[in-house]
Amino acid sequence: MRIAIDAMGGDSAPRVTVEGAKDAAEEAKSGDEILLIGERKSIEIELSRCKNSIPKNLKIHHASEWIDMHEPPAVSVRRKKDSSINVAVQLLKEGAVDAIVAAGNTGAAVCAATLGLGMLEGIERPGIAITLPTLKGISLLIDVGANIDAKPIHLFQYAIMGAAFMRDVRMIENPTVGLLNIGEEESKGTELIKEAYRILEQRCSNFVGNIEGYDLFAGTSNVIVCDGFVGNVALKVSESLAHSIELYLKKALNRNPMTRFGALLSRSAFSFLRKETDYAEYGGAPLLGIHGTCIICHGKSSAKAIKNAVLVAREFITQGVNRHIVEAIKGL
Amino acid sequence: MRIAIDAMGGDSAPRVTVEGAKDAAEEAKSGDEILLIGERKSIEIELSRCKNSIPKNLKIHHASEWIDMHEPPAVSVRRKKDSSINVAVQLLKEGAVDAIVAAGNTGAAVCAATLGLGMLEGIERPGIAITLPTLKGISLLIDVGANIDAKPIHLFQYAIMGAAFMRDVRMIENPTVGLLNIGEEESKGTELIKEAYRILEQRCSNFVGNIEGYDLFAGTSNVIVCDGFVGNVALKVSESLAHSIELYLKKALNRNPMTRFGALLSRSAFSFLRKETDYAEYGGAPLLGIHGTCIICHGKSSAKAIKNAVLVAREFITQGVNRHIVEAIKGL
Repeated sequence: MRIAIDAMGGDSAPRVTVEGAKDAAEEAKSGDEILLIGERKSIEIELSRCKNSIPKNLKIHHASEWIDMHEPPAVSVRRKKDSSINVAVQLLKEGAVDAIVAAGNTGAAVCAATLGLGMLEGIERPGIAITLPTLKGISLLIDVGANIDAKPIHLFQYAIMGAAFMRDVRMIENPTVGLLNIGEEESKGTELIKEAYRILEQRCSNFVGNIEGYDLFAGTSNVIVCDGFVGNVALKVSESLAHSIELYLKKALNRNPMTRFGALLSRSAFSFLRKETDYAEYGGAPLLGIHGTCIICHGKSSAKAIKNAVLVAREFITQGVNRHIVEAIKGL
Repeated sequence: MRIAIDAMGGDSAPRVTVEGAKDAAEEAKSGDEILLIGERKSIEIELSRCKNSIPKNLKIHHASEWIDMHEPPAVSVRRKKDSSINVAVQLLKEGAVDAIVAAGNTGAAVCAATLGLGMLEGIERPGIAITLPTLKGISLLIDVGANIDAKPIHLFQYAIMGAAFMRDVRMIENPTVGLLNIGEEESKGTELIKEAYRILEQRCSNFVGNIEGYDLFAGTSNVIVCDGFVGNVALKVSESLAHSIELYLKKALNRNPMTRFGALLSRSAFSFLRKETDYAEYGGAPLLGIHGTCIICHGKSSAKAIKNAVLVAREFITQGVNRHIVEAIKGL
């Protein structure tokens, strides 16, 4: 298996992507290759900084351009033909690689992958599916921003795709699906949501009905579908709040010698907490619905998150998620 | 000044509403009265349980019905003519009271107040404005669920109303306004959001542009406008996450004797944290845009939150928020 990593994507690229790629290559099964796509010189500089020797299954594929985090996605993808993300998509299209991991400009990755690879049979729009830690294990929120003009049928397709991913990659046998709404009753919500409810009720066997924002981190359903605007806001608000609570807590624990000593004693509790809620553990968000395997990572991804995204990509292919999505859509 | 409290509203009504009303009456300025609206017997039973004597400025106004948390708002408001919320609105309309505090079924309160009191001149839709603790003081998020089919012009009106409230009641001199979106660039978002951006840019002098979910708890702008669906999800997701983090933290701090001892020493830090982020401090969310003063409280409100909501209601009237809203809309 060959997995391409957009080496130029992410806030700390190419340092972090190179580091993550090296870890992934070291842990890879025999025969597996990791391909770093990007400006060869910058990548080589980062590789030369690595302490240990470079694994043989880690290769570089040169791309002369890249798309920065704040460049307009559609325009940049069209103009920068030789950008790392475009090159990665082209390699995937040609069958030279089996999957892409991208931590850069999310809009550009969605745009390049959708235009370059096309949609799966029966799927109209892509959706980014993020794994959330909840009080009852993990849940999948789809879509968090690939498609902000969702139609009811897209939300239904998200349900099918999200369930396939949870079944195949997260090993949840019979994933339940909830619709993110502002109340539990069927009559709640916008026209989009009410129509999506009707379709899901008729055609999705594991549909558990509306779920509210309250339920998101409670683990009420395994898959939560929403339109990309709402999902994007929900995700970013959660990050914002978690960060604020952390800062508040630090400030509070630093108030006097006793609280500082207390914090020292409870340090192992905090590292446990950090591990339990560490997004890097879940390794990136699949862009579901496209004809290919593309795992999108947070711009702030650590090397560990990149490495785990490679593992998710491999599992995605091995388990045949896309085949299962097409079968599920056809069977309905 | 006379302030009516819907005694039957909220998860622990009438116990908590009576307790909060009593505290508010005790702290009231001379001449001020608090009116408990609801089923007289239940209220009297709760009052008889209070330890100290009942303040003379705390009165009961009987209403034979009430609307439960899970009843459908519009239908219930129409059918239950003598429900506590309908009676409160009627008293406000007649000028028998100056403001309402309601902790019950939010939809019913919005519906009763909007139908019963009508809108302020120049305002088309009401908005619920919630005060959020941020890293830089407080921000106001409007709307969190009064109007889920917002038009661009409604978002502009929320900006005007939110700014008036922050200026008059929260004493923020020149409140900035941000538009909740999925990116910073002007070109981002749905058609609703893009059109709202154009109006805000032209007509709102303190508009700082799009803000993302990341910025919500960072305090990037004093007022954040959004449509009621998105705002409701954002608010409830935040509550869900804060609750989950608390539970995780408790679990983590209870892992072994050392972390438990550490937690004991840092206890004062946690109570400080709780106080700094306690929603009850901010005392309810005004329903802005209606012809009258109506403060909506969380269904889980404590007696302190009810009391603080009364203080907000008083300030709302004293400062003339509604007059300032109408003037601001006319002046534009």
